[in-house]
Amino acid sequence: MTDENTLVRFGVLGCAEIARKVCRAIDLSPNSILHAISSRSIDKAKQFVIKNSLSESVEVYGSYEDLLDDPLVDAVYVPLPTSLHLKWAVLAAQRKKHVLLEKPTALNVGELDRILEVCKSKFVQFMDGSMWYHHPRTARMKEFLSDPKLFGQVKTIYSTSSFLPPPEFFNNNIRTKADLDSYGALGDAGWYCIGAILWSMNYKLPTTVTALPSTILNSNGVVMSTTVAFHWEQEETTATFYCSFLSHETMDVSVLGSKGSFHVEDLIIPYEESSATFNFTSGAAFANLHIGWNMKEQEVLVQNELPQEALMVKEFSRLVKGIKDKEIRPDRRWGDISRASQVVLDAVKSSVDSGFNTLYI
Amino acid sequence: MTDENTLVRFGVLGCAEIARKVCRAIDLSPNSILHAISSRSIDKAKQFVIKNSLSESVEVYGSYEDLLDDPLVDAVYVPLPTSLHLKWAVLAAQRKKHVLLEKPTALNVGELDRILEVCKSKFVQFMDGSMWYHHPRTARMKEFLSDPKLFGQVKTIYSTSSFLPPPEFFNNNIRTKADLDSYGALGDAGWYCIGAILWSMNYKLPTTVTALPSTILNSNGVVMSTTVAFHWEQEETTATFYCSFLSHETMDVSVLGSKGSFHVEDLIIPYEESSATFNFTSGAAFANLHIGWNMKEQEVLVQNELPQEALMVKEFSRLVKGIKDKEIRPDRRWGDISRASQVVLDAVKSSVDSGFNTLYI
Repeated sequence: MTDENTLVRFGVLGCAEIARKVCRAIDLSPNSILHAISSRSIDKAKQFVIKNSLSESVEVYGSYEDLLDDPLVDAVYVPLPTSLHLKWAVLAAQRKKHVLLEKPTALNVGELDRILEVCKSKFVQFMDGSMWYHHPRTARMKEFLSDPKLFGQVKTIYSTSSFLPPPEFFNNNIRTKADLDSYGALGDAGWYCIGAILWSMNYKLPTTVTALPSTILNSNGVVMSTTVAFHWEQEETTATFYCSFLSHETMDVSVLGSKGSFHVEDLIIPYEESSATFNFTSGAAFANLHIGWNMKEQEVLVQNELPQEALMVKEFSRLVKGIKDKEIRPDRRWGDISRASQVVLDAVKSSVDSGFNTLYI
Repeated sequence: MTDENTLVRFGVLGCAEIARKVCRAIDLSPNSILHAISSRSIDKAKQFVIKNSLSESVEVYGSYEDLLDDPLVDAVYVPLPTSLHLKWAVLAAQRKKHVLLEKPTALNVGELDRILEVCKSKFVQFMDGSMWYHHPRTARMKEFLSDPKLFGQVKTIYSTSSFLPPPEFFNNNIRTKADLDSYGALGDAGWYCIGAILWSMNYKLPTTVTALPSTILNSNGVVMSTTVAFHWEQEETTATFYCSFLSHETMDVSVLGSKGSFHVEDLIIPYEESSATFNFTSGAAFANLHIGWNMKEQEVLVQNELPQEALMVKEFSRLVKGIKDKEIRPDRRWGDISRASQVVLDAVKSSVDSGFNTLYI
């Protein structure tokens, strides 16, 4: 049996829809336990516990402050609106709670830098809630992408992230309100496209960022849909992405290299929980007479022992345990990855706000 | 047995590599026969006949003029360098030969308009050599794309066309010479991306065209690789494409709609000759808790009785026979399709030449 004292104890700030998925992931992760839930209303927090059949041992708090005051909480998961991230991530880190923060991480990179600074000074782990990084498929794709013989150099990248919410979303959801989440579809869906593109480029920032003029804003000026182009001058590489609340669900990533290419169509959330695939070709060329190809695309199947969100929690908790038990330093790489995405997100938003100018980063 | 007198008799102007594939297609098409081959050198034309095991009955000419003088030639296939299209397509049409013209159709839309004008006045059929339009998979994809319930409105389109030629290509091939084919990868590979994008939009021209600054030119100023963005203002639709001589072979098309989307990765030349597939989803959404999807992508398999290039020849010859035997008017739709591609190709080239400005069409 697992000794409960060795588990990383999570407190959750807010009862957002996504918190249901992450609470389940904390439960599935072998090194983690859900210790406490909080909401601005204690009734809402209690309802959340009942509705999601959480353990009776989970502490329920009627304020985020109260949860942060609980000395048993090792780490917090923060699914609050983006506009509240700075305040609550900083308060949590100041109380030496490790911080698993929903994306987009902040309203701008200045805010994120403040969060990362406090995490650093308080010696706590930071990670954003992008789950797909933790799926073993991602590591397999990276292996292919990094192989100079099979893949060569990255030439162009394409990514989409879209979903079609119900009509009431457009009136009520925080992601449509300028004061709560001014990035809209860009921060919610586009965050993943930006992450996938930067991941393909080993987090090297693009030279330029250009939002295209087909960007659709709602009456609050929040992005509902946009197409964006990136350019890396030295590498002569381009990337484009489309993110939207106006299309049915897509999560495409195609990376095309000098010698190979791959496609995945369910990057952010795999079709199934226990395995995922991607397709690749390497050294593809015309067959004789330009009739057909010398090969067909190949499918790679990758099994995963746990759902990707549980793998995320497991990795986060492994780092937290290293810090707690062995005084290992926090892994700053996760903050660096978030920061790269936030810098690019800010640049895209500035391009939209400037009337679709090309901006140098 | 087929009466040879009822077959459409083809003459081929030039012994380009692609002519080998089209000669085979003429042979495979039940309503067509290869009647004559020509080259500027009669020896080269004779070698072509031998090398490709063509019938001994095929006439061999040492000049294109001589072939056009042959009264038995009903139609010509013109795989000459783009810079020669205007002269030879016009001369052929003036002698009432129907014209199957390799792409890109001309050096600019003015030249193409002259070709189309002569075809119209001489009552001859025009078609460009884009084969993928004729595959039954294309019709099946169009059916899906046109279904308002399954697909909805087109939101964004992405396409690639690339291949990695051997090193000698970059010194010798006509597609690298400004005086022979000033469009380079844009005319050769990009033509297909432009065609696929316009096809998705029912040939409505985009409002704006922007070549992105990562475009790579050779020392002759010919495009070796480029990424391009289109925007349809009224439809709020975007498209991006990548075409290149610097990446291994790809032929991707993804069309994303409000309710459905599809992916094909071998659009221009299917992996196999006798069947082809595409993948689609419609009404995709998150499953409960945002774990997985409500569906997986589905594969549609389409069988074809003949290779797509033979279906192209068959369709062209069907139209020619209609004109010859029944005095049906030539089908101007194929010229309109070519013209739309040429207009957009010209605009992309102008955007490159202007230093990557956004151009209104």
